[in-house]
Amino acid sequence: MSISFLVLAFFLQYCFTSSLYHPLDPLNSTEINQIKLIIQKSKLGGLPDLTFHSVDLEEPDKRYVLKWLSASKQGKTNLPRQSKVVVRGGGETHELVVDLGTDSIKSHHIYTGHGYPPLTFNELFKASKLPLSYPKFKNEMIRRGLNLSEVSCIPFTVGWPIGGISMLVDVDKMKITVYIDTRRVPLPKAEGTDFRSPKGKPDSIICNLTNTRLTIEGHKVKWGNWVLHVSFDARAGIIISTASIFDAKFNKFRRILYRGHVSETFVPYMDPTSEWYFKTFMDVGEFGFGRAADTLQPMIDCPANAKYMDGYVAGADGQAQQFPNVICIFERYDGNVAWRHTEINVPGKVIRSGEPEINLVVRMVATVGNYDYVLDWEFKNSGTIKVGVHLTGILEMKATSYTINDQITENVYGTLVADNVVAVNHDHYVTYYLDLDVDGNGNSFIKSKLQTARVTNINVSPRKSYWMVIRETVKREAEARVRLGLKPTELLIVNPNKKTKLGNHVGYRLIPGQPVASLLSDDDYPQIRAAYTKYQVWVTAYNKSERWAGGLNRQIENRDIVMWYTVGFHHVPCQEDFPVMPTIHGGFELRPANFFESNPLLSQPQKCTKTC
Amino acid sequence: MSISFLVLAFFLQYCFTSSLYHPLDPLNSTEINQIKLIIQKSKLGGLPDLTFHSVDLEEPDKRYVLKWLSASKQGKTNLPRQSKVVVRGGGETHELVVDLGTDSIKSHHIYTGHGYPPLTFNELFKASKLPLSYPKFKNEMIRRGLNLSEVSCIPFTVGWPIGGISMLVDVDKMKITVYIDTRRVPLPKAEGTDFRSPKGKPDSIICNLTNTRLTIEGHKVKWGNWVLHVSFDARAGIIISTASIFDAKFNKFRRILYRGHVSETFVPYMDPTSEWYFKTFMDVGEFGFGRAADTLQPMIDCPANAKYMDGYVAGADGQAQQFPNVICIFERYDGNVAWRHTEINVPGKVIRSGEPEINLVVRMVATVGNYDYVLDWEFKNSGTIKVGVHLTGILEMKATSYTINDQITENVYGTLVADNVVAVNHDHYVTYYLDLDVDGNGNSFIKSKLQTARVTNINVSPRKSYWMVIRETVKREAEARVRLGLKPTELLIVNPNKKTKLGNHVGYRLIPGQPVASLLSDDDYPQIRAAYTKYQVWVTAYNKSERWAGGLNRQIENRDIVMWYTVGFHHVPCQEDFPVMPTIHGGFELRPANFFESNPLLSQPQKCTKTC
Repeated sequence: MSISFLVLAFFLQYCFTSSLYHPLDPLNSTEINQIKLIIQKSKLGGLPDLTFHSVDLEEPDKRYVLKWLSASKQGKTNLPRQSKVVVRGGGETHELVVDLGTDSIKSHHIYTGHGYPPLTFNELFKASKLPLSYPKFKNEMIRRGLNLSEVSCIPFTVGWPIGGISMLVDVDKMKITVYIDTRRVPLPKAEGTDFRSPKGKPDSIICNLTNTRLTIEGHKVKWGNWVLHVSFDARAGIIISTASIFDAKFNKFRRILYRGHVSETFVPYMDPTSEWYFKTFMDVGEFGFGRAADTLQPMIDCPANAKYMDGYVAGADGQAQQFPNVICIFERYDGNVAWRHTEINVPGKVIRSGEPEINLVVRMVATVGNYDYVLDWEFKNSGTIKVGVHLTGILEMKATSYTINDQITENVYGTLVADNVVAVNHDHYVTYYLDLDVDGNGNSFIKSKLQTARVTNINVSPRKSYWMVIRETVKREAEARVRLGLKPTELLIVNPNKKTKLGNHVGYRLIPGQPVASLLSDDDYPQIRAAYTKYQVWVTAYNKSERWAGGLNRQIENRDIVMWYTVGFHHVPCQEDFPVMPTIHGGFELRPANFFESNPLLSQPQKCTKTC
Repeated sequence: MSISFLVLAFFLQYCFTSSLYHPLDPLNSTEINQIKLIIQKSKLGGLPDLTFHSVDLEEPDKRYVLKWLSASKQGKTNLPRQSKVVVRGGGETHELVVDLGTDSIKSHHIYTGHGYPPLTFNELFKASKLPLSYPKFKNEMIRRGLNLSEVSCIPFTVGWPIGGISMLVDVDKMKITVYIDTRRVPLPKAEGTDFRSPKGKPDSIICNLTNTRLTIEGHKVKWGNWVLHVSFDARAGIIISTASIFDAKFNKFRRILYRGHVSETFVPYMDPTSEWYFKTFMDVGEFGFGRAADTLQPMIDCPANAKYMDGYVAGADGQAQQFPNVICIFERYDGNVAWRHTEINVPGKVIRSGEPEINLVVRMVATVGNYDYVLDWEFKNSGTIKVGVHLTGILEMKATSYTINDQITENVYGTLVADNVVAVNHDHYVTYYLDLDVDGNGNSFIKSKLQTARVTNINVSPRKSYWMVIRETVKREAEARVRLGLKPTELLIVNPNKKTKLGNHVGYRLIPGQPVASLLSDDDYPQIRAAYTKYQVWVTAYNKSERWAGGLNRQIENRDIVMWYTVGFHHVPCQEDFPVMPTIHGGFELRPANFFESNPLLSQPQKCTKTC
């Protein structure tokens, strides 16, 4: 035992002294290809239909990561690099943990539960080509007067849909098993569907934000008073880890967010008929926001001063694929004030002061078929983390015989947005995993309820009422789910072991967005899968394995806890959403609440160097 | 009669041919001074204590304004210029309508109801000086070891408060009538209260937004596809009038907002004790957002590319006072996308397109004592109007004997934010007057309710539920008040007389902000004054005289109607809010919903000329 430990220690030193990995760095292309080789050399390599569904970093335990971070530069050695891999072959799903240091498979589990791993783009692509050589379909296209070379079959709407035909593909056998042709509706016109900008590429809008306060070393980002780690994951897309803020009053960095990322999305459509009822996408689990990450367009998706990061994802064959420029990082000045005041009541003086607000934005775009999700993490010098979810792209549409609203007497489950085109009603729920570690691991979840108090003694006050704050520490998970918008309540994550000098518990407050919750009935199949969307907020005990769902009923007071927050949208389409949607905005904030001794903006110098 | 008409017509031509007024232009300094002279020459001029409380434009009737706007340039003549004036003298409040064309008082009404006109700054200033020569107060200050020359008495908190002393001033007699000295608490320290930015004036953040799409002629603003009128009012601050958008598909301007402005604010504090119970400010009516408008700081309050407008307000003596640079107007690029999409499913092509979002912002800052309200009207090329309310400045605070939270066992109605300083719990309600004229005057208010529908026939669908939209046209005012956040409902103002080509009613949708409503009990005196804050949305029939309150129960279907929307904040202070608050943001949007035939962004060329 002690010998093998020595060997491992020697090996680590030998291999990695030249390059120090941050333990949460994503797998790079060399590592992904190394994993492919390890698996191909194993007995799994003999399976003829071996397909790689996911190759993710298996993160070291949180305590090791925290220890590594707090070690001095000289004291840092690389933690073991491991990967969690899901492959499919021989009709079975294999979950593996691969160790890169020892070139070995550390664990191998054959999954026997319900469900399948996310579809690969390879599978989606192959499935989409099958109908083009399927005789019934080919004949029907000819009967409808269409040119087969212009027909595209996909699980998403593109351009304009051909109504009435559904096919079921067995992806393992890569065969069409069901063909349904229910109805023939007019083909919507192509006219007015071109969404390309008539303006061409805009001239650059250059602001003299020179990112002088920004440094990016590998995946480590330093900006102003913030330090954070930005990673890229095939499933989640951007992962923000170990975000800490410098507190000038105490001359030290203080921990806030151990990890934050999109955990799941749920997009149920509200048309229950046979062609549409199953459209209840969970894009992150089914496709992956990282795999759907789009190369960002400079000057359109990100401003001129943006810096870019690439991502690496394993293809269906296990080979590393480079996704260029999938994350952009930039300073943003949106024209707002961080704070300002004019004081005219100090004898003999007028004091007028303030500061423009300049923030750091970390952005990606996931284009999941028709929809484009612009996903922002914004960091403010005030300590606020603002998460933005911006929706644009193309609506899911269906063909219809109608050309004018007055003809419609049945329920079409959507809005007529063009001749013969109905855009279908739907929801979007984007659920965030937020492992907040406010000044340490031991945190509690607080509901601060604003309750009306009656004044009964008129000798005390001529007023009859006021509101007061009733603070309630939530003990167990079952009481920690919250449906917003019903009663005025502030939600906080505090550290019960740390107080400000004035004796207030240090904390962060959730500033929610619109209180949108799923309207599907609890017994509906898609709702059972996405049961968490009935409440916008959940708080659970930290468990390394739980990143993509909730559960159980554990104690959460003064523990390492995780907040789950869902950004929701109900979308009744309108004509302005055709052929491409103007962006709609949602999100939430995590804002310091007695975390600092006073307004941190007054103690941190801000450089705005002019270069333009 | 016909002779006097001729004289008037001649007079109008004589005086105004050289300069054509927009009928909604605010009174300029010449006009304000002319009004002063007219009143001084009248019998009111003899009153020794004559004080001017408000001198506002008396707007022409809407039908005349609309007629004027639709007339050709040659056909335009100035509409009569009139002013509504409130003066106080001889212990009475006089409401006058003054006609500038005929140099005469058209009507004179002595107000006999409850209440007083807004206090002038002159009165506030004089009242604040009274205690400094009031023996009891002077002696108490000496006993407390204070230097009288450093003491400032104001109705707002400044720097740090001296606890325990309240005085009541009869402003008509300008005398202290009540002096209360209840308690002596430690004077909070000055240390840490200086809120001036340590960074000095920032280097300019210049974006090459060159406003090439922006023209300002007097108060008429043209930008991109928008045309609007920006006025300045002593009570409301910014008034946006006659905002129309160019519809490229029909090659014409279409009406949206006849007028929008802040109607009232309500800021109740939650401390019911004798020194605080009365702090339930209605700043717009009591002081005026225009009178409290602050000169804007370039590079801090507004970006480098901003253009500025001055405002003119009558002083207590009736003389015009110039308020320099109180409105700024600028193009803003906040780094977001207006729309984008990447389409990979068109055979043989990858289509990637999009546009950065560039908007127009019209901004003012009202500094009402301690608080600073940054008030934005933002216009987007997509047709959206976004209203922003940003709060910053200094909290209302009180002195306390406590220096650490653990000592506090009583209810202090707020948060200990510094040694011996409690910032008091409070609310902000900013109520907007929104006279929407969507494609004409005849508009209806629609509640589109999203209701869960059960699927009962499993032959129809394997799904069990979906939501559908139940549209309800609101007939009368009583049903047109809405408490948001309880049920998912989209609120629209539609024109029932106009449809898109596809037969959808043209409309605009309210996108509300956080659903905050007052928690005070209905019978509480401040709540009776601000009863409207129990609901976020009201819709009433248009009535020229109703701009500062609601009422009655009139029909509102297919009428000229007005929407009232309240932006609300509950504020539990935290230490980060001391000594000056990081800005918090609220607001709402008015977004086109089937107003356009399709996404208007695709049909309007956008110029972003590079000059930097």
